[in-house]
Amino acid sequence: MAKKNKKIRVALIGGSGYAGFEAIRRLLRHRYVELVGVYGPASELGKMDHFYPLLAKQVELSQELYDKDKLRNLDADLAMLCVPHKVAMSYVPDLREAGLRIIDWSADYRLPDRGLYETWYCRHTDPQGLSEAVYGLPEYYADSIRTASLVANPGCYPTCSVLAMAPLLTAGLIEPEGIVINAITGISGAGRKPDLKFHFPERNENFEPYAVGAHRHTPEIEQVLRDITGIETTVLFQPHLSPMDRGMLCSIYADPSHDVTGDKLNSLLQDAYAGAPFVRVRTKVLPATKYVAGTNFCDISAHVAKGKVILFSALDNLVKGASGQAIENMNIMFGFDQTCGLY
Amino acid sequence: MAKKNKKIRVALIGGSGYAGFEAIRRLLRHRYVELVGVYGPASELGKMDHFYPLLAKQVELSQELYDKDKLRNLDADLAMLCVPHKVAMSYVPDLREAGLRIIDWSADYRLPDRGLYETWYCRHTDPQGLSEAVYGLPEYYADSIRTASLVANPGCYPTCSVLAMAPLLTAGLIEPEGIVINAITGISGAGRKPDLKFHFPERNENFEPYAVGAHRHTPEIEQVLRDITGIETTVLFQPHLSPMDRGMLCSIYADPSHDVTGDKLNSLLQDAYAGAPFVRVRTKVLPATKYVAGTNFCDISAHVAKGKVILFSALDNLVKGASGQAIENMNIMFGFDQTCGLY
Amino acid sequence: MAKKNKKIRVALIGGSGYAGFEAIRRLLRHRYVELVGVYGPASELGKMDHFYPLLAKQVELSQELYDKDKLRNLDADLAMLCVPHKVAMSYVPDLREAGLRIIDWSADYRLPDRGLYETWYCRHTDPQGLSEAVYGLPEYYADSIRTASLVANPGCYPTCSVLAMAPLLTAGLIEPEGIVINAITGISGAGRKPDLKFHFPERNENFEPYAVGAHRHTPEIEQVLRDITGIETTVLFQPHLSPMDRGMLCSIYADPSHDVTGDKLNSLLQDAYAGAPFVRVRTKVLPATKYVAGTNFCDISAHVAKGKVILFSALDNLVKGASGQAIENMNIMFGFDQTCGLY
Amino acid sequence: MAKKNKKIRVALIGGSGYAGFEAIRRLLRHRYVELVGVYGPASELGKMDHFYPLLAKQVELSQELYDKDKLRNLDADLAMLCVPHKVAMSYVPDLREAGLRIIDWSADYRLPDRGLYETWYCRHTDPQGLSEAVYGLPEYYADSIRTASLVANPGCYPTCSVLAMAPLLTAGLIEPEGIVINAITGISGAGRKPDLKFHFPERNENFEPYAVGAHRHTPEIEQVLRDITGIETTVLFQPHLSPMDRGMLCSIYADPSHDVTGDKLNSLLQDAYAGAPFVRVRTKVLPATKYVAGTNFCDISAHVAKGKVILFSALDNLVKGASGQAIENMNIMFGFDQTCGLY
Repeated sequence: MAKKNKKIRVALIGGSGYAGFEAIRRLLRHRYVELVGVYGPASELGKMDHFYPLLAKQVELSQELYDKDKLRNLDADLAMLCVPHKVAMSYVPDLREAGLRIIDWSADYRLPDRGLYETWYCRHTDPQGLSEAVYGLPEYYADSIRTASLVANPGCYPTCSVLAMAPLLTAGLIEPEGIVINAITGISGAGRKPDLKFHFPERNENFEPYAVGAHRHTPEIEQVLRDITGIETTVLFQPHLSPMDRGMLCSIYADPSHDVTGDKLNSLLQDAYAGAPFVRVRTKVLPATKYVAGTNFCDISAHVAKGKVILFSALDNLVKGASGQAIENMNIMFGFDQTCGLY
Repeated sequence: MAKKNKKIRVALIGGSGYAGFEAIRRLLRHRYVELVGVYGPASELGKMDHFYPLLAKQVELSQELYDKDKLRNLDADLAMLCVPHKVAMSYVPDLREAGLRIIDWSADYRLPDRGLYETWYCRHTDPQGLSEAVYGLPEYYADSIRTASLVANPGCYPTCSVLAMAPLLTAGLIEPEGIVINAITGISGAGRKPDLKFHFPERNENFEPYAVGAHRHTPEIEQVLRDITGIETTVLFQPHLSPMDRGMLCSIYADPSHDVTGDKLNSLLQDAYAGAPFVRVRTKVLPATKYVAGTNFCDISAHVAKGKVILFSALDNLVKGASGQAIENMNIMFGFDQTCGLY
Repeated sequence: MAKKNKKIRVALIGGSGYAGFEAIRRLLRHRYVELVGVYGPASELGKMDHFYPLLAKQVELSQELYDKDKLRNLDADLAMLCVPHKVAMSYVPDLREAGLRIIDWSADYRLPDRGLYETWYCRHTDPQGLSEAVYGLPEYYADSIRTASLVANPGCYPTCSVLAMAPLLTAGLIEPEGIVINAITGISGAGRKPDLKFHFPERNENFEPYAVGAHRHTPEIEQVLRDITGIETTVLFQPHLSPMDRGMLCSIYADPSHDVTGDKLNSLLQDAYAGAPFVRVRTKVLPATKYVAGTNFCDISAHVAKGKVILFSALDNLVKGASGQAIENMNIMFGFDQTCGLY
Repeated sequence: MAKKNKKIRVALIGGSGYAGFEAIRRLLRHRYVELVGVYGPASELGKMDHFYPLLAKQVELSQELYDKDKLRNLDADLAMLCVPHKVAMSYVPDLREAGLRIIDWSADYRLPDRGLYETWYCRHTDPQGLSEAVYGLPEYYADSIRTASLVANPGCYPTCSVLAMAPLLTAGLIEPEGIVINAITGISGAGRKPDLKFHFPERNENFEPYAVGAHRHTPEIEQVLRDITGIETTVLFQPHLSPMDRGMLCSIYADPSHDVTGDKLNSLLQDAYAGAPFVRVRTKVLPATKYVAGTNFCDISAHVAKGKVILFSALDNLVKGASGQAIENMNIMFGFDQTCGLY
């Protein structure tokens, strides 16, 4: 907590994807941050405005080849890792050894149960990091984040769905079995690698489900809910692609445990998030992706109909679902105001 | 069945909305149809290419003021009614008396239970028509449609969801309670009346739920399922708007009654629709709105995951969800090939 | 003209791109056509509904490996070639020798001046074909198309811009020097090959010029105008990408040769295209891509402002700009009604 | 210049439109601004998050009824007027009398020639304000803006086109006659009032010209060019609507006065704007709306082809074309860094 309101030195590893781009824009605007370097693989080096012409005249930085010794000599306070899973855990031990605090955006440190990680992803090569990492959902883990040396920035779908469900599970108002999460995301969620599936004329005017019963965010959602609520929860998570750049909306269907009303549920949600700067409980309008676009907010609302509890939860997949939440974690880790650089 | 493969005379009542427009395009292309007149309210009269410049040089017709005597003297075989509910039932008795067969696209004749209709809509003024109307879902009611004098063209959401669910309910493979239908539609589904909600910059890049627990297609879905399967079924139907012109996708979640697999369910669906020219059971790709855009197809697929049955069902809300299905019904009523004018 | 209104046998070479897909849909609907085969390169073989799931249950054809002997034995009347330039001229001589009439959609036979072709494309290997090919713009070359054995289907931009300009040049009303064609196209115009440039999140909400001073349709526009009008014309052609699937609009700026009015120009255009089923001169609305979407129409209008003549011209790049015009040419070649299968 | 780097008190008049919304977001983020009130007409009052749910939890302000006495007592330093023309000039005299400096976004003070204003708009009721207003294009009028009491914030199209043309006209490199400006804008440029023309399904997948020879930005462009360059210039300005929320691109065609190259022109542009923080001369990529979306940049590039000079110029119509430029003017008027709150 030493550096409160003094500039910290931040290195970004993996700046050429959509989330990295959003991070850069927000870090440049952040009054207590100096972005001291951007690093990437040999195939993606060059000036940031080469990858993102929008950044021209705002940032002179180049994405340089990642090299652990270079990082070591940067005298950086924090490394943000926007690299794919597996790559992340190959960098983290060196960076930690070099004294950097780390926010990792990949899945590598999100599942503390190594077996679960290895079932859904691949062999884990940094079990020690895994055991020490803090899950970076500020609404629930702010105290641990404050002092963490390694924060696992949550997945977009887990953030969106957990924020809506957790208070109701904790209060024993919805059943932890048989929950359905019907989710949609904009196409930036699929990354920046060209593919026929994401070719403009294939995607425009198209709405499509994907990854039936197999999306890797399923175990993350279940383990975070269990960790927060102490209740074993199982969810059927079904994502879809909607023809838009960005935005995410989860429509969640659960069985009520008691006789509840939407009003009562919303009031409980409002109490639960009274102190959370980035959660908004909506009662006048329904959550919609346009109301959170470009912001770090997660909008939620609860309803009861036909004997089911319905929860809607919306966020910007590139902001509260990735870069914004990482900066929120950074703000907490370094004692800045939690909203700094995020309005 | 007298006029097989001779041109029939069709009058369209309500040609200035999106579904009317799609109907006109298809009727013009239909080799056994002569479109003899288009009629509308005093506020919406004029040449069809005034409402739809796309139609210029293809159709010389004007939308003329609706007048029952004019209709009576047209010597038309069929009237298609694309007018709002309540208006439809104010026209139908006269048109039937004048000897026209009718396909009504509104909700007025879809719910045979008058009380149910009046609960969700308004007082019903043509109970006799209501008791005689045939529900125009060709996959289940073709025999009755063939000889019907009044066909109630189904709603878009009911068509989309019932086609996916009915065979599994009939086979006793899914539970009739607790079914969730998470549906999305393109914006043309909201009609052509300007409103801030549908203003381009409000809707583009926006995904939003609406009508929570209150959409009028809910009772239609439940009553049609009951009628087809003989099983009392309750559904939670939740629609959303996706930023695109057209297309509809239902993601349906149900509890299995038995131990089933996706393969077995798809195979049952394939058998159920072996003779249905416009239902496609998808096993290689998932249903997606782009694969049905502009067509009269409904694409469905079944899956099992996390103890739930998941069904996807996609159609074009303006075609199989409205104008195309009306023409399919017309083809059946007049003994034409069921696909005529629809490929 | 022998086969009037009897089915002709058509082979399609190159069915897996967007224009091929649109051709298949229209050929299936055409009452005087039997599509007898679809052929492609080794890397793109398989059932048509594999490439285009929309086609399932409508066409059972597979794209088979192109083989000249197979084509020879098909007893086909016509081959449509939707293959890249250079590939087209490697197929044409064999196909002609086998007695097929040909409509080639590539640029290979559009520029009768071999030197010009070789300047903009590559070496031409079929000079004889080049000298015999007829340019397939039905509004100007219908008589030659009727008996042609080889028709060069025009480019989308040349069709769109030439139809607007030619009558005014012929009438001596606009100057043939200094004409600016500012054109936009939907993204399907860029083909179906994935590339970062056409990745959905790069293209959505993006409007961008391309190919400054270097688009290959420039010489085609100039040579066709010269051929039709007898006047040497030079144009500055500047294309742009607009975030939409399909549609093309040219805004053309020329210096008037005389004192003219928009009304007079439109009236001249109306006279020029009085007999053209697919050109519409717009005086009540301006040409717009939505008014021609999915149709074979080209909509044009003329205006005078600030001492300049302004022409707008809109068409669907995949229809009048490719597949529809090819079918229109086929209709003329085989004596069918020019609009058959195209409304 | 008194208040350098102390917070100034800003009142916004007209906060419920798209540009007002963008202004609010940026003013909230601005470290030297306190937004002390938002005012509007009786028909549009209420909490800002009622108009823009995105603003919830970020701003507690309500749009209150505009009342000159209320404004007088606010002790505000600056009023930003985002109201329609005619309304603006009915407020300005009172506000000036009350001692507020003013940035007016309407057209009311952009045309110093009262006759010209009255030809294109309506009778001018504040000729004194008109004679004293400074045109708020910082790249050319920064010195006057610094001390101005009334700044006329430029139109979006004039900003976009003038920035590209002015240096080349001044240098005598392009002819001032016969210039064509072919412009496109996203739909937010048409405002927030629902209308069939801007109804989502009418606009999506649609590209369309409008206001042929009649757009009110024409005289503004011509008079600003004359004022900056001293050369009488006439332009043919032709706008189009592109199916996207925001962004503007002008493609400008002019006759060169000398033998020039694109490189030479770009180099001259680079010199001209070396000190301008928000103009970027593009030589590696072409200007595109996505590269300026959400930013206050104007990207330009110059080319020579077929004997013409081609200029491309892109900006975000709601930022550099409206709210961003207003804040840039505010920064200059109050001695803040010109980019403050705008990166």
